[in-house]
Amino acid sequence: VNSRIENPLFPDVDTPALLLDETRLHANIAILQQQAASSGLALRPHAKAHKCAHVARLQMEAGAVGLCAAKLGEAEAMADGGITDVLVTTPIVGPLKIGRLMRLAQRITVRVVVDDERNVHELARAASAAQIVLRVVIEVDVGQHRCGVDSGLRAAALAHCIHAQASLTLAGVQGYQGSLQCQADYAERRRGIVAAMDALAQSVNAIREAGFAVPVITGGGTGSFPIDRVLGCLTEVQPGSYVTMDSAYNAIDWCEAGGRMPLRAPLSILASVVSCATPGRAIIDVGWKAASSDGHVPVCRDRPDLIFEFAGDEHGLLTSSTGSLDLVPGDRIELMPGHCDTTVNLYDRFVVHAGGRVQAIWPIEARGKSN
Amino acid sequence: VNSRIENPLFPDVDTPALLLDETRLHANIAILQQQAASSGLALRPHAKAHKCAHVARLQMEAGAVGLCAAKLGEAEAMADGGITDVLVTTPIVGPLKIGRLMRLAQRITVRVVVDDERNVHELARAASAAQIVLRVVIEVDVGQHRCGVDSGLRAAALAHCIHAQASLTLAGVQGYQGSLQCQADYAERRRGIVAAMDALAQSVNAIREAGFAVPVITGGGTGSFPIDRVLGCLTEVQPGSYVTMDSAYNAIDWCEAGGRMPLRAPLSILASVVSCATPGRAIIDVGWKAASSDGHVPVCRDRPDLIFEFAGDEHGLLTSSTGSLDLVPGDRIELMPGHCDTTVNLYDRFVVHAGGRVQAIWPIEARGKSN
Repeated sequence: VNSRIENPLFPDVDTPALLLDETRLHANIAILQQQAASSGLALRPHAKAHKCAHVARLQMEAGAVGLCAAKLGEAEAMADGGITDVLVTTPIVGPLKIGRLMRLAQRITVRVVVDDERNVHELARAASAAQIVLRVVIEVDVGQHRCGVDSGLRAAALAHCIHAQASLTLAGVQGYQGSLQCQADYAERRRGIVAAMDALAQSVNAIREAGFAVPVITGGGTGSFPIDRVLGCLTEVQPGSYVTMDSAYNAIDWCEAGGRMPLRAPLSILASVVSCATPGRAIIDVGWKAASSDGHVPVCRDRPDLIFEFAGDEHGLLTSSTGSLDLVPGDRIELMPGHCDTTVNLYDRFVVHAGGRVQAIWPIEARGKSN
Repeated sequence: VNSRIENPLFPDVDTPALLLDETRLHANIAILQQQAASSGLALRPHAKAHKCAHVARLQMEAGAVGLCAAKLGEAEAMADGGITDVLVTTPIVGPLKIGRLMRLAQRITVRVVVDDERNVHELARAASAAQIVLRVVIEVDVGQHRCGVDSGLRAAALAHCIHAQASLTLAGVQGYQGSLQCQADYAERRRGIVAAMDALAQSVNAIREAGFAVPVITGGGTGSFPIDRVLGCLTEVQPGSYVTMDSAYNAIDWCEAGGRMPLRAPLSILASVVSCATPGRAIIDVGWKAASSDGHVPVCRDRPDLIFEFAGDEHGLLTSSTGSLDLVPGDRIELMPGHCDTTVNLYDRFVVHAGGRVQAIWPIEARGKSN
């Protein structure tokens, strides 16, 4: 008799499934909100991580000023779910998307980032035709070399260009250094974030010296949050992953000298063993279609002796660091995803649980809303 | 004036979008069906690649004997879409899934692979209770060390175990060598496939010598297809990717001496440039959430001078091999995905086109059906 088979994890949930621990989720929402507030920072969590209107509403109820969305489709899903203030953190280009943006801006408070004069003119024409004043935020490249103007001079020129459009208003500046967020070593992460915030402050100063107000300075993520709290450059922070966490963020030093992370890990993938045909190896039902592989590798929760490897689109391989494997087909295990954003994007719903029991199913409305 | 902006690709399609060229799709379906038939092989295409009932119906109309599904959710979606014969190519374990399998087997012809005596007993009890005779297929490990019994002795023992169950019938044997399918060098791929088919033939012989019929020997993929056609081990082939293709399969030698692939590439991702803030770099709206990164890197179609790199969850970076980049925000390009199965799994629909115009939208019903 195998006790794990007789008392499986979540016996009424078919696998693979995306689990969300409600107690840990609420704790993470409360902790970051409290820490942001105590540092005088507005908290605008990023919906790209959870893509779920229910989670967004919990963040708003806790005190968030609004949500971020990386894609217009995410912003629309948040608006449909009752969120009334969204910052779109990627430029919105082309007539189809700008038409959608105008319709969204007629429903809720929308801000959108810009880094290009042609795009400013395109947005201004559309806002004018829609008879709205659109809030735009200048994106500054603070070292990631992705989107964003790359100097204070260009930031000030773009501010002039925005100011010249009657249908646009300059709502602030955004600077985000995504590639540093998961840097595990605190001192190294801090060095990079300080350099990024210096670059952002230079652009803010250039815009202000050109005579324009910069009411909001927005940016930052989960990894930079403990640093952004003390640097004082940002007025608004955009962490996303803090709410679900993953094995990459779980491995970073939260503060100096390897200080312990105040955040728990609510997100996991429930998996089943489907084959143990080869001694010492167990095959589970989680492969690339049920766990993303672009970041860290998923890790087995509560079973540090088990090592997970991807074994194809629909399969994962478990081996044991002790050499002996006690698993049989039907056994269930929980994996902590390697990268929360792209793993959440594979699922239609969260199975929300507390005390070992399923409490609710929350739809992931913005799943796949990549346009 | 930029002629690409004035005449963009698919101006009525918002990006990112998953495009499917209908002419190329029909050609691929016809070519493989004809080549399988001329070699006396039954063709059972794998739905894990396209996850779309419309494509499956086209494959059936062309002469396929049924479809494969890697997951029960895929098989259910195929049945809902009118497919009446499905082989589930992964073991189905545990009471929840086996209950679903029984309900499916009451609707359509279902075969399911097994590699474990405990699983055989579990299936037999459920089939008996459901008053059906379930067709099972012994999965043989032919070198991938994932699922499957690893010797003729164990295959014959499993055949005995199946034969002892009144509610089960042995429908055949499966052997699949997934890790060899994309091996680009034909001779090396052929060597591996020959070894795999030798292992499979040994298990088939062992089962037959034990006194049991093996009516179907199923396996193979797109890369092994030209080899399986001539080896004569399989009676039924399971290629999936041939129907959509991707940059990995597009790069393999189809036959000896680098022989040209008869298959075209119907699948592409339509992307838009969203930022050109840094000279020599263009940022597009395709990142890890709109193109899978577990296999080959996506490549730019019709623009071999452009090099794609992932730049985060929602961003991709284009640079030029010539050094000068002629792109502006709003420009559109088509990417050939690096891995079709996991890219299709990110989208809810195919935008089907012919002659440069959108012809239809086909839902990807089994998208995300990973359980």
